[in-house]
Amino acid sequence: MELEINKELFEHIELLIQNQNDTAILEMLADEHHADIAEILDELSLDNATYIIKLLDSEKTSDILMELDEDIREKILGNLSAKEIAEELEELDSDDAADILGELSEERQERVISQIDDDELAADIKELLTYEDDSAGSIMAKELVKVNENWTIPRCIKEMRLQAEEVTRVHSIYVINDAEQLIGRLSLKDLLIAPAKGNISKIVRPKVDSVNVIENVEEVAKIMQKYDLEAIPVVDDKMILLGRITIDDIVDVMKEEAEKDYQLAAGISQDVEADDSIWELTKARLPWLVLGLFGGLGSVFIMESYEDIMANPTLGRLFFFTPLIAAMAGNVGVQSSAIIVQGLANDVVKGSLFNRLLKEVGLSLINGIVLGILVIIFGIITKMTFTFSLTIAISMLCVIIVAALIGTFVPIVLDKRGIDPAIATGPFITTSNDIFGIFLFFYIAKLMLGF
Amino acid sequence: MELEINKELFEHIELLIQNQNDTAILEMLADEHHADIAEILDELSLDNATYIIKLLDSEKTSDILMELDEDIREKILGNLSAKEIAEELEELDSDDAADILGELSEERQERVISQIDDDELAADIKELLTYEDDSAGSIMAKELVKVNENWTIPRCIKEMRLQAEEVTRVHSIYVINDAEQLIGRLSLKDLLIAPAKGNISKIVRPKVDSVNVIENVEEVAKIMQKYDLEAIPVVDDKMILLGRITIDDIVDVMKEEAEKDYQLAAGISQDVEADDSIWELTKARLPWLVLGLFGGLGSVFIMESYEDIMANPTLGRLFFFTPLIAAMAGNVGVQSSAIIVQGLANDVVKGSLFNRLLKEVGLSLINGIVLGILVIIFGIITKMTFTFSLTIAISMLCVIIVAALIGTFVPIVLDKRGIDPAIATGPFITTSNDIFGIFLFFYIAKLMLGF
Repeated sequence: MELEINKELFEHIELLIQNQNDTAILEMLADEHHADIAEILDELSLDNATYIIKLLDSEKTSDILMELDEDIREKILGNLSAKEIAEELEELDSDDAADILGELSEERQERVISQIDDDELAADIKELLTYEDDSAGSIMAKELVKVNENWTIPRCIKEMRLQAEEVTRVHSIYVINDAEQLIGRLSLKDLLIAPAKGNISKIVRPKVDSVNVIENVEEVAKIMQKYDLEAIPVVDDKMILLGRITIDDIVDVMKEEAEKDYQLAAGISQDVEADDSIWELTKARLPWLVLGLFGGLGSVFIMESYEDIMANPTLGRLFFFTPLIAAMAGNVGVQSSAIIVQGLANDVVKGSLFNRLLKEVGLSLINGIVLGILVIIFGIITKMTFTFSLTIAISMLCVIIVAALIGTFVPIVLDKRGIDPAIATGPFITTSNDIFGIFLFFYIAKLMLGF
Repeated sequence: MELEINKELFEHIELLIQNQNDTAILEMLADEHHADIAEILDELSLDNATYIIKLLDSEKTSDILMELDEDIREKILGNLSAKEIAEELEELDSDDAADILGELSEERQERVISQIDDDELAADIKELLTYEDDSAGSIMAKELVKVNENWTIPRCIKEMRLQAEEVTRVHSIYVINDAEQLIGRLSLKDLLIAPAKGNISKIVRPKVDSVNVIENVEEVAKIMQKYDLEAIPVVDDKMILLGRITIDDIVDVMKEEAEKDYQLAAGISQDVEADDSIWELTKARLPWLVLGLFGGLGSVFIMESYEDIMANPTLGRLFFFTPLIAAMAGNVGVQSSAIIVQGLANDVVKGSLFNRLLKEVGLSLINGIVLGILVIIFGIITKMTFTFSLTIAISMLCVIIVAALIGTFVPIVLDKRGIDPAIATGPFITTSNDIFGIFLFFYIAKLMLGF
């Protein structure tokens, strides 16, 4: 991290590119980490970024491509020929190569694959592209170190050394039988402190966690976290070893998942970033605002049905409290659903639905009574009649209880039906709770004040 | 994962404990992973869980303790003597031991430390307890494999084998000089494929990323993710090697961080879970609801100042739209702030504040115009006058623009002042935007309709 990434640096690089001073550029970037170079390229113009990609050798640029912002990578790949892309892919692990290739059109994918000289890699990439998104197969790498159970320890060490040159991080050595089925594992450490002679079966650890190739990636993340694994082998239904998933892939999955949940809670429906175009951001945000608009227009209808009481100097004041009621209903609903959504993700939501709802009622009673007392104090200060304050307080209490129940009930039901419960937090809950809240508020006020 | 964790299992275990059938319990749990046993203990009564902890040997129970729910661990530790806790800690890595110890009272910490036989571990734990929460030092482990630059390769392999027995996962071998300063690293693979003779300096990789012991953990997480590291050495100001942080610690940091941000966005102010007590949940939720209540009461004041127009059959209808306006202001504000908060976390918020605000204005204009057209269509359907519909649409557009500006501005300012911007999303933004929104709505309506 010797280079400071700032405006002067960009201007300097732009000048060097303009003067085609390749030697100086190469020298400047020679010792830089590919992640840092990617950060620089993300900020340069497309032409300049492409210039640098074509200038550096593919061993370095392949890693840089992996780190680039997706939009920018797409554009740069558009500037490269199928042959050039194939050369980049040959430097990457199969999972990374498949990820990049997956971003191209099908027609282009085929042209690039036909240009890959390494037949094994080409076959691996083709295989990886067949797995469903979000399946273990879609994030696994084909590269791993495996040894046969019948080999001697010296042969294992020799074979392992050969294979290890192709594998970025070894983690575990997988032991297979003649049918290519996973039957155990060895750690590098086991091999390092193993006796010099004897058969591998002496030191193999027969207990090895694995996941099926069609397992959902979030489930894989949970298993790896629970058992503190840094790599997990991927097998098919017959236990044949197909690949492995490493913890860095899982870190990416977790991060994406957390960002998606956060955005859903905030009413943003696709994976966008602050730097995306206005059009992308509008597509992600507008639908939820339209939902909120319909909710708001719905409550207009409810209030219209109480139009008669507006002229009444006391009863008309109820309308002043509608934003308060809507806000409380929304806030309580979001709180309840967020806790449930997170609990479902962490598998801590146990016990019956009935008990869960009962707990929420208890919680809402406590919160609602405290808030109700505050409303009554506000009423005393602002000289409202006690009946009126009490009406606001009690109807607010009922609204809070119902909002909490909706916030708890909806994500649990969605989850049971196999729908991501995270979608229930945010605008969905606030909007439905706004309408319910205002409806309930006027209904209870009507009962209490008798209009 | 042979045991299925269900009601029958718990009843079976409870029965075995009641009958003190230790052999059967030991046999049943012998092959279970510590994470699975922890999951079982989380559900048992405190006495039963303690019974099992005392029954199993400390090599296994120490790992189980680490995986337990924090509340339950605290209670079980309360049932163990200082000597028993010390025995558990001796089986753990220094970072895990320090984490568990940190949960005890200071007085109890000292008693436990005095019972630890391994003086080196005791010293390591004491050192780790001195680091600030959220600093690299607080999550690093003292266990690592280090070799001196002057050693020969065979000596390195020999020393490394000795040290590796103490270290759960080796990852990298750190190379230090005589002053204990970090000067490079080796991978296990390097050592495996190294020539049998020669000095270590021949194969050392001089470029090694490291973090300072006082660096913030979130910063460490960012560095490890950016450079795809599975372990990073921790040094002091003089580059003396103090410990190392592994990716599994970072996974925990990321998860906590994501959950905290999600909860803040949902108006939950501390780390709670669905299974926590009603009291814990109330403490986390009530403060935000009180904030929302004050916001709502604030808007009551604003509306009171327009009390006169209530009796007017046209103007009075403006009050029907206050929940809609408040909802739109809240939703837009949360969307804007969530994108900024996430952008700040990922370092993608670049460019000047002015440009950022300008972009939000553009975005709000598009969203606001589309939503405004929908309001006018709604007005035509429900036979509102065009002037009235237009008033609602235009004031809503203004509210949306202001809400987006507040949602963008507040987190950026908080971040610049070193306050976690995540606090700005959720109830904070919705409440302030509710008030601003309703104020602006009536103000613009007044200008347009002339009352």
